[in-house]
Amino acid sequence: MNIQQAMLQKIEDELKHQVARLDQPRTKHFHEMLTYHMGWTGEGSGIEATGKRIRPLLVLLSTSSLIENEEMGDPNTSPYWLRAKSAAAAIELIHNFSLVHDDIQDNSDKRRGRNTVWVNWGAPMAINVGDALFVIANQAVMDLMEYYPAEVVVKAANILNNSCLDLTRGQFLDMSYEERHDIGIDEYWPMVGGKTSALLAACTHIGALLGNAPETQQESYRLFGWHLGLAFQVQDDILGIWGDESVTGKSVASDLVEGKNSLPVLYGLGRHGKFAERWAQGPITASEVKAVAKLLDDEGGKEYAEEISKIETQKALAYLGNANPQGEGGDALRQLAYKLLDRKQ
Amino acid sequence: MNIQQAMLQKIEDELKHQVARLDQPRTKHFHEMLTYHMGWTGEGSGIEATGKRIRPLLVLLSTSSLIENEEMGDPNTSPYWLRAKSAAAAIELIHNFSLVHDDIQDNSDKRRGRNTVWVNWGAPMAINVGDALFVIANQAVMDLMEYYPAEVVVKAANILNNSCLDLTRGQFLDMSYEERHDIGIDEYWPMVGGKTSALLAACTHIGALLGNAPETQQESYRLFGWHLGLAFQVQDDILGIWGDESVTGKSVASDLVEGKNSLPVLYGLGRHGKFAERWAQGPITASEVKAVAKLLDDEGGKEYAEEISKIETQKALAYLGNANPQGEGGDALRQLAYKLLDRKQ
Repeated sequence: MNIQQAMLQKIEDELKHQVARLDQPRTKHFHEMLTYHMGWTGEGSGIEATGKRIRPLLVLLSTSSLIENEEMGDPNTSPYWLRAKSAAAAIELIHNFSLVHDDIQDNSDKRRGRNTVWVNWGAPMAINVGDALFVIANQAVMDLMEYYPAEVVVKAANILNNSCLDLTRGQFLDMSYEERHDIGIDEYWPMVGGKTSALLAACTHIGALLGNAPETQQESYRLFGWHLGLAFQVQDDILGIWGDESVTGKSVASDLVEGKNSLPVLYGLGRHGKFAERWAQGPITASEVKAVAKLLDDEGGKEYAEEISKIETQKALAYLGNANPQGEGGDALRQLAYKLLDRKQ
Repeated sequence: MNIQQAMLQKIEDELKHQVARLDQPRTKHFHEMLTYHMGWTGEGSGIEATGKRIRPLLVLLSTSSLIENEEMGDPNTSPYWLRAKSAAAAIELIHNFSLVHDDIQDNSDKRRGRNTVWVNWGAPMAINVGDALFVIANQAVMDLMEYYPAEVVVKAANILNNSCLDLTRGQFLDMSYEERHDIGIDEYWPMVGGKTSALLAACTHIGALLGNAPETQQESYRLFGWHLGLAFQVQDDILGIWGDESVTGKSVASDLVEGKNSLPVLYGLGRHGKFAERWAQGPITASEVKAVAKLLDDEGGKEYAEEISKIETQKALAYLGNANPQGEGGDALRQLAYKLLDRKQ
């Protein structure tokens, strides 16, 4: 088993352990709603339903990449990175809390091919499921007390809390942009910074903190995560319009139909050309999608986004270079970064 | 100015300071949604709209009641209890986060005589407003680092997190009971324990912790808050059916119309008499309310609830006696307890 597989197994164990706080006689059904969302129970449960657990993996790989010599006992039975497991779980729980609330806010009925929580149990219950995931995330961070001094636990909590506030800011901007048709590219960055990058930056930042990195090195890890998030999001935006349906598994150009303010779209709007004209006329139908995507491509929207994606990818890799991750964890962290930054899906 | 007035002023200042985290150029409108809910801005803002701030007051009074001699500087300019202000704010923010989400879940359009957040800005925004209040609460607790060692801050966070999980448990039970007609009295306590008592217990527990009380004394403070919450809730249940409209300001017996599983109702259902028969037949209309309330009174529902309220009040006062609060803060804490336990509204 390689280090990534070992981590993924420990992450799943820790997540189940944390969520089990609700596994009590009176709240069995409540617990089931959470385990359903996490992908462990109910129809369609299994590896496809859990998501890739990229965030907790980034935490553990970051921590692990700072410990050249596993001085804490046998690396196979009790590796140093295992100490960071509850922080890794916390971030994944935050991510999932935001997904559950997002799905209500966006009125999305499917998530990873399954009914969303609000579809199964109604919005009031789903709001509460999200809230509970958030509370458990906060509890999980505090569990770091088992291995770290209280000062470090508070630092980790502060990093996580700040990223959560950024999440709500990004969510606010995203929702408020829906009603506007004058969004400029400069308004794109605070939105995706909050919605995507803040939490990824928290992963690598907390991972470095828990690997006892000095502050300047923590900052390199943090900025690696931040730009990784931006690069990832821009790629997501490109795939959302021009992606290969058979590869992404999503229907292509659904972002155009949904009217998503993605980077290529905002670029196109700024051009004030035929694309902007069509966009202003109202929702794009499925049958128009190919033509509108071509229009946006012709006006330079794809090329622009690809250029930005390249720049952000280079920044991410430069900060990863500064972070200088070591050992097996470091190699695995680099591999994961390359995979995330050079994806087709 | 007495100690309670001084505290209320500092509480309001600290709450504004905490919520100002969102007072940034791009999120002004988001910030406004929070300040509206907190009662500071918008139509109908002012003292009537803020609520009574009982929870943060309980925190500060508990802290203050443990410091006989204000050894930390001038008690007028920098009293010891001021150190606990961010924890006091945190609990009030948690309370308000739960109110914002509750109002969506219950489909309530009014709160303290004003439109609820979801009525003004829609449910998706309101979910995010609640989430942000919750995040800021977590940040506020960590601000205790300014005055307390990290170990104490983590303890305070743990107490708060546990009470938040209880809140989601209570909310789950409350919502799941709505669909059931076989709720027994033994199912009442975990619900109100979670929805009301857990947070009040956290107030007095954290207050005692921050006043450096030994653990056994912290436990007395905690249990005082817990039973205060139960007594308060049972009284609320009584007032919700037999309260004096001109005093409570709410339309009487609205709890019957809303089908609320309050203690007198659960008692009445357990009697399997005429009240239970009527309850099973479906929603009670406004015109029936007086007759149904009388039916429940005749079957002993009011007397039973009053007896329980008396028992819980005695328990609360006994634990308050054990806690043995001192000084001006102690006197004010006792006064507040008497007022909360002997209310007509």
